[in-house]
Amino acid sequence: MSMDMTFLGTGSAYPSPHRGASAVVLRTDGECWLFDCGEGTQTQLMKSQLRAGRITKVFISHLHGDHLFGLPGLLCTVSLNTNPDIQQSLKCVDIYGPLGLRKFLRVTLGLTGSQLLFPYAVHELEPTPDQCPEEGQFSLETTAESGPPHPQEQPGRTIPLDVSSDCYLLFQDNKFVVKAFRLFHRIASFGFCIQEHDRPGRLKTEVLKELGVKPGPLYGRLKAGESVVLESGRLLLPNEVLEADIPGRKVCVFGDCSSVLGEGAFRLCHKADVLVHEATLGNEHQKKAVEHGHSTPEMAAAVARTCCARRLVLYHFSQRYKPSSLKKEEGEDDVSELKNQADKALQDCGVEVTLAEDFMTIPIPLRRPSTS
Amino acid sequence: MSMDMTFLGTGSAYPSPHRGASAVVLRTDGECWLFDCGEGTQTQLMKSQLRAGRITKVFISHLHGDHLFGLPGLLCTVSLNTNPDIQQSLKCVDIYGPLGLRKFLRVTLGLTGSQLLFPYAVHELEPTPDQCPEEGQFSLETTAESGPPHPQEQPGRTIPLDVSSDCYLLFQDNKFVVKAFRLFHRIASFGFCIQEHDRPGRLKTEVLKELGVKPGPLYGRLKAGESVVLESGRLLLPNEVLEADIPGRKVCVFGDCSSVLGEGAFRLCHKADVLVHEATLGNEHQKKAVEHGHSTPEMAAAVARTCCARRLVLYHFSQRYKPSSLKKEEGEDDVSELKNQADKALQDCGVEVTLAEDFMTIPIPLRRPSTS
Ligand SMILES: [Zn+2]
Ligand SMILES: [Zn+2]
Ligand SMILES: [Zn+2]
Ligand SMILES: [Zn+2]
Repeated sequence: MSMDMTFLGTGSAYPSPHRGASAVVLRTDGECWLFDCGEGTQTQLMKSQLRAGRITKVFISHLHGDHLFGLPGLLCTVSLNTNPDIQQSLKCVDIYGPLGLRKFLRVTLGLTGSQLLFPYAVHELEPTPDQCPEEGQFSLETTAESGPPHPQEQPGRTIPLDVSSDCYLLFQDNKFVVKAFRLFHRIASFGFCIQEHDRPGRLKTEVLKELGVKPGPLYGRLKAGESVVLESGRLLLPNEVLEADIPGRKVCVFGDCSSVLGEGAFRLCHKADVLVHEATLGNEHQKKAVEHGHSTPEMAAAVARTCCARRLVLYHFSQRYKPSSLKKEEGEDDVSELKNQADKALQDCGVEVTLAEDFMTIPIPLRRPSTS
Repeated sequence: MSMDMTFLGTGSAYPSPHRGASAVVLRTDGECWLFDCGEGTQTQLMKSQLRAGRITKVFISHLHGDHLFGLPGLLCTVSLNTNPDIQQSLKCVDIYGPLGLRKFLRVTLGLTGSQLLFPYAVHELEPTPDQCPEEGQFSLETTAESGPPHPQEQPGRTIPLDVSSDCYLLFQDNKFVVKAFRLFHRIASFGFCIQEHDRPGRLKTEVLKELGVKPGPLYGRLKAGESVVLESGRLLLPNEVLEADIPGRKVCVFGDCSSVLGEGAFRLCHKADVLVHEATLGNEHQKKAVEHGHSTPEMAAAVARTCCARRLVLYHFSQRYKPSSLKKEEGEDDVSELKNQADKALQDCGVEVTLAEDFMTIPIPLRRPSTS
């Protein structure tokens, strides 16, 4: 199964002509999962090779506008481009994010009279008070739902922290389990860990042929891990005819943060194939970065090192960092310096560092069984 | 005083890479007034010659997302680019729009923890029930304000329809009077009329010199329309030494509509220098346009003709109409056909027709006294 990741916006604070606001798409088998949705994401999608109509799940790391203001418009535009004749088959779009997100969508879609041709559900993560300074905590009055639900709003879950594992279980299906973990930022922020299940290896059909087993239901049972008795009376164990398991891939997307909170992030992100982390400002601005709840390349590198990640992708750059291909004006810096800083911090441990740019796509190849 | 108008977004329904969502800036003496603010307006502003920090007033014609979703982000970005050291001198940004706009901003800015360095006030226009079909009317529950006001939210007015004049008085100062009028659309929509005051003409200094009056306070009193007694005892009337009044300019910006409601629009927009009107679809799609609450070039032309406007500017084009400079794909039309249709409808009355394009700036020259 192919899997890749496209960065639609790599800028912090606000969208600019050179960097969109935060938005990343993880694509598997034609389904698109969107991580954050800053203003302009729908236009970035149109400029990319991706199709907005393929978005089935949305994950919002935190409620800052540069991660959220594009969501109502995106939903409206997906609906406009939906064929109403096949309405009955439209699946519910699941939206995950912090407490308050349901009200945000209810009010923005409600007051604009936005009709949607598909249902949506908002599943809210309950932050813990230590995820942000006191002034970043919302009052109950601010997050309390108000107004009628949107006609297409389906009931969503409220997901509390599982204290023993220090994480949030968002969902699992036959391919993936997706969890969230806590981060520290100016307002409560989350990261997401997408873990693909391991899959049984290839059936050694050449061995089966030698044993005289013909293609048929037995193949399926062996692949599913069952032992079978052959006509000859021989008991055949699945590991005799199966190659090693194909280990599932792991992709971790961090929201804005100046630090992780608790053990959840490190446990979940251990040996991530790809770890996407913000690097808003260079190491020389670490004090300012932390004051604003953000990270530097060195800080991101430290997280990737602790997690033993295979690849660290940096994004959410201050708009002062222009893409390397652009001519700089006074007060503007080249983003490549941020890569140098992360590379330096990781030079002894072989983590590959990548700077995300708008419209960059990163393939996430299958792991080799031997390297699992 | 110079006056011009820049179109930041000329597309309908949603922003696309070829046409931004609705946003128009009227600029006078360095102040910018923004009419509608679709998603991506802040990025369009950055690409233009205009400065977002100059925006002192915002007018929202109606609450559809393609006219509104860019407003919270725009306010945040203006604030980020505001120098906090001169905070004490920051003026309040006045925002005018339909009932519900105050709640929209309160919830979007509140839930995103958006801090602003300047105060803002929302002045809400009360629509009448006949401005839209019943299904477009908001319930009280939908528009009821909820949650605490934003720390920078100043009390705003609620502006009812003045029944006798069939319009809304938004404000007047020493240069302008701005009123709104009612339109019919899928949800309540408004148009805005910006009327510059007439100004006294040039002082005929050559005549004053002949009379022996030297530059000084007398000049100012004459210019202000006062009669003065000269040292010689002669009574000098202002019209002896003043050229004819410079008539004020009139700019009218219509929100989405399939028709105007009542007499307000026609009274206010009479002899508009510039009348900006939507033309979402071509004449051949009139039935569909009206069903969706929109106009065709012919319908826009009929309004301009009734108003005796000098110039009709069309905008808010369906995204199927690509700019003339772009190569068309299947199912795409050239926008110039919409101009042809309006020209044809106005060929006997000399109204100048202009198709707006993103980033187009239209100067609004002073009227000549003789043509007033
Ligand atoms: Zn951010
Ligand atoms: Zn943030
Ligand atoms: Zn519109
Ligand atoms: Zn509309």
